[in-house]
Amino acid sequence: MEYYLGLDIGGTFVKGACMTAEGNLLAEDKCDTGCENGGYAMCDNIAALSEKLQSKIKGQLSGVGVGCPGMIESSRGVVKFAGNLGLSNFPLGDELAKRLGVPVKVTNDANAAALGEARFGAGKNFKNSILVTLGTGVGGGIIIDGKLYEGGSSAGTEIGHMVIERHGEMCTCGRRGCFERYSSASALTRYTKHAMEEDAGSAMWGKYTSDTCTGKTAFEFMNVDRTAKEVVDWYIKYLACGLINLANIFRPEVIMLGGGVAAQGERLTKPLQKIMDKEIFGGNDYAKVLVVPASLGNSAGAMGAAALCLD
Amino acid sequence: MEYYLGLDIGGTFVKGACMTAEGNLLAEDKCDTGCENGGYAMCDNIAALSEKLQSKIKGQLSGVGVGCPGMIESSRGVVKFAGNLGLSNFPLGDELAKRLGVPVKVTNDANAAALGEARFGAGKNFKNSILVTLGTGVGGGIIIDGKLYEGGSSAGTEIGHMVIERHGEMCTCGRRGCFERYSSASALTRYTKHAMEEDAGSAMWGKYTSDTCTGKTAFEFMNVDRTAKEVVDWYIKYLACGLINLANIFRPEVIMLGGGVAAQGERLTKPLQKIMDKEIFGGNDYAKVLVVPASLGNSAGAMGAAALCLD
Repeated sequence: MEYYLGLDIGGTFVKGACMTAEGNLLAEDKCDTGCENGGYAMCDNIAALSEKLQSKIKGQLSGVGVGCPGMIESSRGVVKFAGNLGLSNFPLGDELAKRLGVPVKVTNDANAAALGEARFGAGKNFKNSILVTLGTGVGGGIIIDGKLYEGGSSAGTEIGHMVIERHGEMCTCGRRGCFERYSSASALTRYTKHAMEEDAGSAMWGKYTSDTCTGKTAFEFMNVDRTAKEVVDWYIKYLACGLINLANIFRPEVIMLGGGVAAQGERLTKPLQKIMDKEIFGGNDYAKVLVVPASLGNSAGAMGAAALCLD
Repeated sequence: MEYYLGLDIGGTFVKGACMTAEGNLLAEDKCDTGCENGGYAMCDNIAALSEKLQSKIKGQLSGVGVGCPGMIESSRGVVKFAGNLGLSNFPLGDELAKRLGVPVKVTNDANAAALGEARFGAGKNFKNSILVTLGTGVGGGIIIDGKLYEGGSSAGTEIGHMVIERHGEMCTCGRRGCFERYSSASALTRYTKHAMEEDAGSAMWGKYTSDTCTGKTAFEFMNVDRTAKEVVDWYIKYLACGLINLANIFRPEVIMLGGGVAAQGERLTKPLQKIMDKEIFGGNDYAKVLVVPASLGNSAGAMGAAALCLD
């Protein structure tokens, strides 16, 4: 039996998942990234993880795919720059191929997650889909005709850095008013904190302080507290604005939401769908765009990375 | 010799161009759209135009491509809706194939122009390009790996309807702050008019009134009149904002500018390039995005339509 190894590199751990071409998981495990000792040490750790996983499976490892944070030049398997990992111009694909003895493909971690969801998760019945990840920032990946679209020079697709409010809030990228300044989990937390500080009578104070509130707080209290409801409505309007921009540009069949905020499920997707249906260009009869939660959770990245070997 | 016919349907005329697979033009002509008599009459006119063109060429017509305004379902060659032509759910591809006896492919007119520029014009040395047309609205087409990307259900790519200023000006699409409200030729004319009315001493009054000014007026006076310069700077900043959004999402190698405003050439592209280089995500060393004027003028649409037959 042939199988594939997908690796999802994070700031602390590397997740590994072995699966068949059909997406059946055979084994999963993780190791420390160990990148404080440099990229070569990280590759050694990954090689050990790979051996451990292979020892559990009868069959032939036929390819390895990697999702890695940062700027990736996927055609050469090079990490151009990954600040959290301390890597720059590191030949990740070649170094892993040396150690593992099979071809290695590398893409950005957000792209890998999008491919995983598109092939095996919430997008599996659609040819054109977008995964939008609502976390510390807003990331995402775009699937066109069943294939990952990486942007020219595989430098795209920085959907979080689409300005939706010129003269808006300053973004880390140097521009003002980027989508992720309004729609990330961090933005939601920031607005919850601000709203609590403005409303001493908010029910949210019964359980949280303005320092302990998170992106979940406003959703938790939205049915009993007017201020919490306002925060949620505010967040959803900005998120809808960015999603409709993407829908007008790509007209995918489905937009999948990942990251912590997406755990809100229908409390998030139902009002988003309503705004999408109303405001999308040309109306909804033309070609509906569904908004759904992603379904693979933390496995999306490793599964999508493995799927890189399947094309 | 095999050749192809490209048709570019406009509000008044249908332009036809016969060319070889290499993009060599063999003959060009046009006819009245005649759509006031309905879609079938328009197809009859086009058939007559085709015969006229064929009579001038020795060779074999091997395929016909059409660029048509409005919402096109390209997989079936159907015009879902084209307000200016008075067509809805019209089987344009089938009706033309019946009359012309060869396969007919249909796409949106902006897409056809993008394909024309990408294959034979300003984008011919690049695999990933975007044509942004600055006319009455802002339209465009996206070329990925040398192929036209039409969006899921070929309903995309409505790049003019990307919100860049939430709570901004009301757009015809029902949302506020769309890119085309700020970056179309119409927007430029509107702001020139407004600026003239605010500045009775502007040198622009020497040649134009606030009713006769156009999208060219501010460019014409930018070197001698402060108000004109301000209008141009203002326009370029908004245009840059939308173009950088597209660059961050698609990271094409080149963005080509078409439509009337693009005739300003370097007066437009030079300052745009400067802002692009400074503000694009991840910086310019990573993967530069060039901003250039389109080069085929009014022939782009028909040539790109013919190119539909070449894939």
